Amino acid sequence: MGIHISTKIKLAANQGERKSVQVGDIMIGGEKIVVIAGPCSVESREQIMEIARRVKEAGATMLRGGAFKSRTLPYSFQGLGVEGLKMLAEARDETGLPIVTEVVSPETVRIVEEYADIIQVGARSMQNFPLLKRIGKARKPVLLKRGFTSTIEEWLSSAEYILAGGNNDVILCERGIRTFQSLTRFSLELTVVPIIKEVSSLPILVDPSHGTGVRSLVSPMAKAAVAAGADGLLIEVHPKPEEAQSDGDQSLRLEEFEELMKSLKPLAHAIGRSI
Amino acid sequence: MGIHISTKIKLAANQGERKSVQVGDIMIGGEKIVVIAGPCSVESREQIMEIARRVKEAGATMLRGGAFKSRTLPYSFQGLGVEGLKMLAEARDETGLPIVTEVVSPETVRIVEEYADIIQVGARSMQNFPLLKRIGKARKPVLLKRGFTSTIEEWLSSAEYILAGGNNDVILCERGIRTFQSLTRFSLELTVVPIIKEVSSLPILVDPSHGTGVRSLVSPMAKAAVAAGADGLLIEVHPKPEEAQSDGDQSLRLEEFEELMKSLKPLAHAIGRSI
Amino acid sequence: MGIHISTKIKLAANQGERKSVQVGDIMIGGEKIVVIAGPCSVESREQIMEIARRVKEAGATMLRGGAFKSRTLPYSFQGLGVEGLKMLAEARDETGLPIVTEVVSPETVRIVEEYADIIQVGARSMQNFPLLKRIGKARKPVLLKRGFTSTIEEWLSSAEYILAGGNNDVILCERGIRTFQSLTRFSLELTVVPIIKEVSSLPILVDPSHGTGVRSLVSPMAKAAVAAGADGLLIEVHPKPEEAQSDGDQSLRLEEFEELMKSLKPLAHAIGRSI
Amino acid sequence: MGIHISTKIKLAANQGERKSVQVGDIMIGGEKIVVIAGPCSVESREQIMEIARRVKEAGATMLRGGAFKSRTLPYSFQGLGVEGLKMLAEARDETGLPIVTEVVSPETVRIVEEYADIIQVGARSMQNFPLLKRIGKARKPVLLKRGFTSTIEEWLSSAEYILAGGNNDVILCERGIRTFQSLTRFSLELTVVPIIKEVSSLPILVDPSHGTGVRSLVSPMAKAAVAAGADGLLIEVHPKPEEAQSDGDQSLRLEEFEELMKSLKPLAHAIGRSI
Repeated sequence: MGIHISTKIKLAANQGERKSVQVGDIMIGGEKIVVIAGPCSVESREQIMEIARRVKEAGATMLRGGAFKSRTLPYSFQGLGVEGLKMLAEARDETGLPIVTEVVSPETVRIVEEYADIIQVGARSMQNFPLLKRIGKARKPVLLKRGFTSTIEEWLSSAEYILAGGNNDVILCERGIRTFQSLTRFSLELTVVPIIKEVSSLPILVDPSHGTGVRSLVSPMAKAAVAAGADGLLIEVHPKPEEAQSDGDQSLRLEEFEELMKSLKPLAHAIGRSI
Repeated sequence: MGIHISTKIKLAANQGERKSVQVGDIMIGGEKIVVIAGPCSVESREQIMEIARRVKEAGATMLRGGAFKSRTLPYSFQGLGVEGLKMLAEARDETGLPIVTEVVSPETVRIVEEYADIIQVGARSMQNFPLLKRIGKARKPVLLKRGFTSTIEEWLSSAEYILAGGNNDVILCERGIRTFQSLTRFSLELTVVPIIKEVSSLPILVDPSHGTGVRSLVSPMAKAAVAAGADGLLIEVHPKPEEAQSDGDQSLRLEEFEELMKSLKPLAHAIGRSI
Repeated sequence: MGIHISTKIKLAANQGERKSVQVGDIMIGGEKIVVIAGPCSVESREQIMEIARRVKEAGATMLRGGAFKSRTLPYSFQGLGVEGLKMLAEARDETGLPIVTEVVSPETVRIVEEYADIIQVGARSMQNFPLLKRIGKARKPVLLKRGFTSTIEEWLSSAEYILAGGNNDVILCERGIRTFQSLTRFSLELTVVPIIKEVSSLPILVDPSHGTGVRSLVSPMAKAAVAAGADGLLIEVHPKPEEAQSDGDQSLRLEEFEELMKSLKPLAHAIGRSI
Repeated sequence: MGIHISTKIKLAANQGERKSVQVGDIMIGGEKIVVIAGPCSVESREQIMEIARRVKEAGATMLRGGAFKSRTLPYSFQGLGVEGLKMLAEARDETGLPIVTEVVSPETVRIVEEYADIIQVGARSMQNFPLLKRIGKARKPVLLKRGFTSTIEEWLSSAEYILAGGNNDVILCERGIRTFQSLTRFSLELTVVPIIKEVSSLPILVDPSHGTGVRSLVSPMAKAAVAAGADGLLIEVHPKPEEAQSDGDQSLRLEEFEELMKSLKPLAHAIGRSI
């Protein structure tokens, strides 16, 4: 009884003891739950600095923000590119928060790994195999989001590309799947948290912002993720969500994020972890 | 921003204050989280009595057990029928636990409501409208499971049939939906917990046993459901799951259930509730 | 290589030679493709008589119309009941078209089988097992629609209930499944036509009206169904779709139906069948 | 009544008259239905030459074959790369069949467009936006497969990237979506054929090989696609499917392909087209 995956998945499979990924003095996959917070897109120096300071104060462990964006339509805001990376680095310098940012093509891996502490592979890139191969050669840890229609075996197979390439530091992140349910943009599948713990040694985070797409659902699902055993959370935060260039509907306001952090502490404690 | 449902759904919609459903001296939808535990099917007097005693000791609030079953194939065990109801009643007499059992056709509502404290409508019956109409006239509270392919609006529309019929005591229960993900039989959609809190006044329970179909996933998802704000849990328990007539793979052993109950207490406390 | 289903499905499985179902002098599952046309709901004597005459002239083989309806909300039109059955019978008397109508509960099987030439089990009732058991004792052929979230094995297992009950005349009907695609209400899964031919001996029809939910898509998908090998079609037709009590958006106007029938003839001929 | 898409999709939307894409003297989207046949992967010079000759004789319009592959696991055959492109070109030289082959990364667009007559974007790359942008600058027509979890609006938005980049020759190709149905790898959604005709001016092809994943289902679904109005087909063909490096289970044998071509002729004729 239990969950079984293909034996062709080797490096991403359960290898006896849980693996954790070190970023500076932060350990992802250990006893302490990490919280990576920030805006969907880096929009300006002021925006990212304000958010960095506030999420740091509230207890966030890392800062997230997109500089290279994956947008459905060519007419949408495509991100600030290298300028955005520099702003993120400046925010790190001031707050000490390591930064997590997305890479969308093999050619930009070099520049992204120069600035980022963790390289993020987005859901739409999960099966971009040339990108995965290139990231297998990168010198930074990787946050691999689950494609929104990917099976768990496909997800681990994509991790396998990175691990087989020589990069041992892969962190998984559930961000919702596509189902017939249409009141929310995606259906957050929290069951993957205990499934990943059972079939893989890799750390697993949850992104309740993309996973629900609706602000009022983010905090309840963040709590549920922690109770399910997630090693951390990815939370979108914006000072003025109604003015955000992207994903405003699912971003927490700064006060809401502070509130959430407070409520997560006793919860983490109740399951024998800290935050 | 937020979730909006059709204005044609009236009685099952959010009506300002949260409704709770009283069963004896138990309040479903209040501060205290209810735990309904028991076997998938009542199989014998000995089986149901043993389980009733043990789950009672472990802290369960109610006893569940199927006497009339919904089985995919005609050749599968179809339940003990009225004999099963009598065994459940005997278990209630001894332990004091109220009983929850399923009804599958309008003709058997009369006999089921005579024995049950809560009448359950299973996922496959969620759009059995003649059954819902008949239950609208029943004198017992109703546990309405979500069909595994039902939208949230369809689920609330089915609740509307019961409420419009005059039965005010409807309790919702999420039990997993069907998606492309095939490592588990269903995908438990916990996000419906905060969604239901936002759009409806009805209490909402979660069934992580059917919602995952895999024993090792039940406890983590039970904890996640509580953290997400569920008003209670439905848990399948069996002394010897490998010998169960149905759903053995997803039933907790008695010791596993006791373990789970212990771990839920600090969790409920951490979110300001009790269990 | 090929499709394999559970060996527990016996009577509904491929038993060597294709089975056909006789209704008067019409053979369903033979060389000739049957077309069952009519309104979603019987609304009045005038409506059903006009439609019956017109679809008969256009070449339809049978008349469909709902008297007992399955509606998501309790406030929607629930059908004319026995009065509707009588109107259907009158339309049959005048046109000679056999009638197909739905049954939604075990108690009404007796009255429906008295009037109908084929008893229809709707998608929402596909796993209403008490209904299937009762229909296994009925003396009329059964049109079993696929539940919109049912696997092919579950569908055949439901057919198994009817066949095991002693009723040998089961006709399957694909009517669309629920997927993430939301421009149409359902996704018509035509691949089940050759799958059913491979794994079962039962005749298979297609309902492109419910399967798409959009008028402009009905005719192209009806043609595709015939080319895929379907034994017949179920088509919703209404003289004034914008005034229909139900399903107006997916009903063909009478002229559109006549046009479709004309275009199906050469197509049927091209694949060695007639219509 | 009908299908409506976002007004932000401009160039890929219905622009009054149907667009066709010219490749040599072949017109895709005209009266004549195109058939693109060949192996999943180019495996050797002998293999591709034999297939090219045979599908040409049987009436195919173009030759397909993968040189750069997208494989779920890093340990699977990844294609012959540039060597494969050269073999395809040689097969074109001998048979006169234009060639269609996939590109998986921006860096290889230059080399692929040098050899290919049509550049294919596979399902897993449909939202690889850097790739789409680069292809918008390519000088060859593009075959854009639908991602297996993509909505129709997302698919057209991806076409928009290519069109907005200045490449006017985009051909769409449906290849099946992911649903709960698990007897086949994907569910071929033929309804998109009339939907695309309604909302877009772009030509639309269907790939029943990937769309079903099962050899015995390919021919029935190819016929259904033609009847639904598809402008062409993509068919996997292999002389010895059981020895294929990839996708053997869904490849037609050469004789089966010849058989299919014969049966498509009268069908195309019946709907007023040729093949």
